[in-house]
Amino acid sequence: MVRVSLKVKLLHIETGGINIVVLNDEQAKDMDLKHLDRARVQNGRNPIICSVDITKVAVKKGEIGLFVEPEEKLKVKDGDILMVECVSKPKGLKAIRQKLDGKELDEEEIYDITRDIVNDALSDVELTAFIVSSYCRGLSLEEIYNLTKAMVKTGEVLDFGKGPVFDKHSIGGVPGNRTTMLIIPIVASQGIKIPKTSSRAITSPSGTADTVEVLCPVDLPKKKIKEIVDKHNGCMVWGGSFNLAPADDKIIRVEKPLSIDAEGQMLASILAKKISVGSNHIVIDLPMGPGTKLPTHERAEHLNEAFINMGKKLGVKIECIESNGSQPCGNGVGPSLEAIDVLKVLTNEPSQPKDLRYKSLLFAAKIFEMSGKAKKGKGMELAQKVLDSGKAYEKFKNIIKAQGGNPNIKISDIKVGSFIYEVKAECRGIITMINNKAIADIARAAGAPYNHGAGLFVKAKLSDAVNKGDLLMTVHAESRIKLLRAVEVLESKKVFTIQ
Amino acid sequence: MVRVSLKVKLLHIETGGINIVVLNDEQAKDMDLKHLDRARVQNGRNPIICSVDITKVAVKKGEIGLFVEPEEKLKVKDGDILMVECVSKPKGLKAIRQKLDGKELDEEEIYDITRDIVNDALSDVELTAFIVSSYCRGLSLEEIYNLTKAMVKTGEVLDFGKGPVFDKHSIGGVPGNRTTMLIIPIVASQGIKIPKTSSRAITSPSGTADTVEVLCPVDLPKKKIKEIVDKHNGCMVWGGSFNLAPADDKIIRVEKPLSIDAEGQMLASILAKKISVGSNHIVIDLPMGPGTKLPTHERAEHLNEAFINMGKKLGVKIECIESNGSQPCGNGVGPSLEAIDVLKVLTNEPSQPKDLRYKSLLFAAKIFEMSGKAKKGKGMELAQKVLDSGKAYEKFKNIIKAQGGNPNIKISDIKVGSFIYEVKAECRGIITMINNKAIADIARAAGAPYNHGAGLFVKAKLSDAVNKGDLLMTVHAESRIKLLRAVEVLESKKVFTIQ
Repeated sequence: MVRVSLKVKLLHIETGGINIVVLNDEQAKDMDLKHLDRARVQNGRNPIICSVDITKVAVKKGEIGLFVEPEEKLKVKDGDILMVECVSKPKGLKAIRQKLDGKELDEEEIYDITRDIVNDALSDVELTAFIVSSYCRGLSLEEIYNLTKAMVKTGEVLDFGKGPVFDKHSIGGVPGNRTTMLIIPIVASQGIKIPKTSSRAITSPSGTADTVEVLCPVDLPKKKIKEIVDKHNGCMVWGGSFNLAPADDKIIRVEKPLSIDAEGQMLASILAKKISVGSNHIVIDLPMGPGTKLPTHERAEHLNEAFINMGKKLGVKIECIESNGSQPCGNGVGPSLEAIDVLKVLTNEPSQPKDLRYKSLLFAAKIFEMSGKAKKGKGMELAQKVLDSGKAYEKFKNIIKAQGGNPNIKISDIKVGSFIYEVKAECRGIITMINNKAIADIARAAGAPYNHGAGLFVKAKLSDAVNKGDLLMTVHAESRIKLLRAVEVLESKKVFTIQ
Repeated sequence: MVRVSLKVKLLHIETGGINIVVLNDEQAKDMDLKHLDRARVQNGRNPIICSVDITKVAVKKGEIGLFVEPEEKLKVKDGDILMVECVSKPKGLKAIRQKLDGKELDEEEIYDITRDIVNDALSDVELTAFIVSSYCRGLSLEEIYNLTKAMVKTGEVLDFGKGPVFDKHSIGGVPGNRTTMLIIPIVASQGIKIPKTSSRAITSPSGTADTVEVLCPVDLPKKKIKEIVDKHNGCMVWGGSFNLAPADDKIIRVEKPLSIDAEGQMLASILAKKISVGSNHIVIDLPMGPGTKLPTHERAEHLNEAFINMGKKLGVKIECIESNGSQPCGNGVGPSLEAIDVLKVLTNEPSQPKDLRYKSLLFAAKIFEMSGKAKKGKGMELAQKVLDSGKAYEKFKNIIKAQGGNPNIKISDIKVGSFIYEVKAECRGIITMINNKAIADIARAAGAPYNHGAGLFVKAKLSDAVNKGDLLMTVHAESRIKLLRAVEVLESKKVFTIQ
């Protein structure tokens, strides 16, 4: 194999994930390296495998240009000498070729691909080829099972022993919907372990982690998370805090721009994250309805079955609840506005959003029944009692404090954007449709989730009777320009249908 | 839409094709731009659409980092101000989504995708999604037809009027095989128009354009090519000389690292290039056998049918010839060694490679019969006469001269690598197999095609009887280190099987 010494030239640019080095055209010809070929790069210590980009201008012959990712992994500076040699393509690429041709992959092949994904060894072209061929050819139940195991194996795990450990997940697509922040304290207050990790928003106005962050830090080290759950039975942290099934984020990075959400990979990603935190009982929210990921009952039913089957193979007890996803759940959309909703329900404020309260109780009840804390049909009663007694709020405050927040924060302490725009009914009638996608787009244009105080307060709900001029929704932004952007988006979309 | 002014920071790095700009994390959040979202970037004149990469280090808030591609298109320098605004994703992306879900694309959708490919408007992820979904779902005859037309429409064309214009193409995979350099002069000398464009090597030891380049320039402006063909009836130029079906190269850039050669895209690419140079009669070489792209007769037959059908739809007369591709054609492998083979055949040297001579005559004969220059069954006779009479060599010299080369170059003027290694038979027997792939790998390791004089002289052919110690092949390199590399590759592969 060709092996040469090259001088480091730092490029100070991130690739967004994969390891890329840049070689001069002449250097590459000399080594017979072509665009996207692989090189092993090392400075005496740990070698890393990089994709090769070829340039005529950025680096000279004898130099090697490093993007930020390989720079950080190799810990080198300008002018350092690196040993560079051509290597064959990553092992997973062979398996990806198989999938392109429609072959079912075995455990080892799926592990090879997953490890290459986690090690940033695949180029965008190669990773996309895996994701798209899996999407077009489909993944078998066995392949999804192996992908789940590989995702767990290539990441870090938490271990809470053999006893029951619960988790909850929502397929998403419904604005607001911060049930997690209510379910966790209700359930944990009754001694049930539920180490919940949540995501941040990618295209939505807020992820659970973004909303929790209004009240306390969510990015905690693994050791701290273990401590909190050991002591308080629950937590509400960001899933990116430690290296939890890291293949998932790398897959999402490719799926997002293509707007695909391949079922097989989705199942594997969700289950791998749950298994990695030690869960063996999972309740899954399947929000169904127009504008959600599950537009029909049949689709929801199909996914329900897939989850149950996967759970059986993995030795995890899974139950799904089909919920109505055709409108926002709660009034707030955006981190601070959602956090206010949650505090209202916990403190039993008269103005609390009844839909959010009810949905959270439903899921807590299911967990009580699965765990044996309540008999079949008696879970709701227990959940209500726990919430109304203030025990859930007490547990909530303990978790917020343990995560480093202020447990005594009041609703009035939470700032929402002071630049507001009110959306009023243009005619009298009944609200027959609410456009979730438009709600999300407006809230993002207003600045959510990066501006915590930005978002919407959605007052009107489906089947409400309204008069002309009644308030339907308030837009909140933290600056005039973002409010104007939100209003511009608002004016281009139909949010409420009144008939 | 959000529109801001940002200060240019040139990054001096190529992306290898697509337009990418880099924004600071904070800037992107402020504009609600995510990784791979699109921005319209302009400096008063023509706007271009770029994909957005997000950085924490490379550029500051208020700046826009430009890779070389957008820098050259916008003609800007450090510190210039650009107007940047978010735009929706390219139109072709919607069509790609349809293909991902298995829908047959219509003419307009395929045109949208092709135009986006040519305009570098798709990211690697998006372009790969199109190529892989087309590969997995397949392209219908109608889709291939529309892709061919779109590829022609999005590039430049040559026009030689309505009369018969011929072309010749080989599916490839056979080392040596420089029939084009013999077919063109034989055919053109008889007044048949054949404006041949050829490719350079990507993974092979030499492309036709690389070998022609040993004798004369191949990168000529479009106007010059037209002039040469108008005067001499033929040319032998590089297909990248002008913007000929430019979508093709961009598709190949993604297919290569995945080692896929999707049939539909291959058909469209080949035919679009031929139609773009004005051809309406095409002869196609289908090399068949172990180690080629067509391992079985059935595969070759299938491709033959696909070409004939596409030809009918496009109004182009196509005939295919199945050839034996199980060993190199000619003795030379690598630019200079192949050029020597060609000159030997043209000058009727006794040591000329008979297989290369015969195959070239076969294709020239087919063209003579298709054009009516010879009656059915009489083409071979005419082709032999033209070659043996020296008329083909005369035409060859005229073309070489017209393209700017020395028509009087002699075989002894062509330098081959002086660092040599001889491969000898290890036992007595009959040669029953020659590994084309190993031949290619060794020649590349020796420095071909970048070192023109590097490559192999393959003496032994299939069915030859050899004694232990007989010379099978000579490796040529231009430096000791490259010879050593080639020998290393040689020792790891089985090139000849003797039984």
